[in-house]
Amino acid sequence: MAKKEKEEKNEQVQNLKEEKVEEVLENAEAAPEKSELDLANERADDFENKYLRAVAEMQNIQRRSNEERQNLQKYRSQDLAKAILPSLDNLERALAVEGLTDDVKKGLEMVQESLIHALKEEGIEEIPAEVGGDFDHNFHMAIQTMPADDDHAADSIAQIFQKGYKLHERVLRPAMVVVYN
Amino acid sequence: MAKKEKEEKNEQVQNLKEEKVEEVLENAEAAPEKSELDLANERADDFENKYLRAVAEMQNIQRRSNEERQNLQKYRSQDLAKAILPSLDNLERALAVEGLTDDVKKGLEMVQESLIHALKEEGIEEIPAEVGGDFDHNFHMAIQTMPADDDHAADSIAQIFQKGYKLHERVLRPAMVVVYN
Repeated sequence: MAKKEKEEKNEQVQNLKEEKVEEVLENAEAAPEKSELDLANERADDFENKYLRAVAEMQNIQRRSNEERQNLQKYRSQDLAKAILPSLDNLERALAVEGLTDDVKKGLEMVQESLIHALKEEGIEEIPAEVGGDFDHNFHMAIQTMPADDDHAADSIAQIFQKGYKLHERVLRPAMVVVYN
Repeated sequence: MAKKEKEEKNEQVQNLKEEKVEEVLENAEAAPEKSELDLANERADDFENKYLRAVAEMQNIQRRSNEERQNLQKYRSQDLAKAILPSLDNLERALAVEGLTDDVKKGLEMVQESLIHALKEEGIEEIPAEVGGDFDHNFHMAIQTMPADDDHAADSIAQIFQKGYKLHERVLRPAMVVVYN
């Protein structure tokens, strides 16, 4: 190899080394490694966000589930109670029959009382409604009207056809009434 | 500055530069940046795991909540049904009274039927029990025993005192029976 060639070669090597150093110095504060770090940090931030959102969602699910459970508990007897109301109506009609012996009457009243007691235990009560009292469209249903006069104010109850019942504040069935208007 | 000093200084600078380059080259594949990257990757892995665990937990919570809701739905009528059973007993006793007029009997039977129907709608049914049938401790309660003989096998039912009821497969109250033994 000529001396000149060797010198050129050395120069090339030197240049390459210098380039390498420059590259390394550059890379040390920018591209590949930094970029990998950026990506890793982005991934970390991404999963941190996902994790925090999942925790928040979990708390929401638990809160909703608790509310739902409380609601289910509160109104759990609704369907059975509704289905039992006709039995109470039948009992009242049976008790209204004339000429009942005391034994039968006592028996019917026992059944009626135990039913009303069972319903009350679960939060079911008769809706207040009285002749002469105020008509309340939230709790009463007007199945007929009568003309109001001096003795009978408009929007007062003239007659009660069928008792209404509510479960807590929820109406199971409104009281059926005749109302003055 | 003496020429020698200057040369020394240059050498120092050169050394420093070389050190720097070595340091940078080293760091490029190890310490600070790499370590920072490691930390970032660890953080990312950590939050990924936390996130995946949170998602799994969320699914568990939802599954449990669904099961709980289904259970609450299935047995929601349990308490009201239990409380209504004495009314059914009273009705049966009332119907057993002698000398009832047809009207009263019909009225009582209507109440009884509508109650049984309402209970059935919610999954409540009478527990099968018959005189001569097998005693089943899962559904019957022996309140008295009678000696078994050639005509009456041991563990067979001698008499039914009070009907039992179940809600789906759950016993609300066992049938009270007299059993041969």
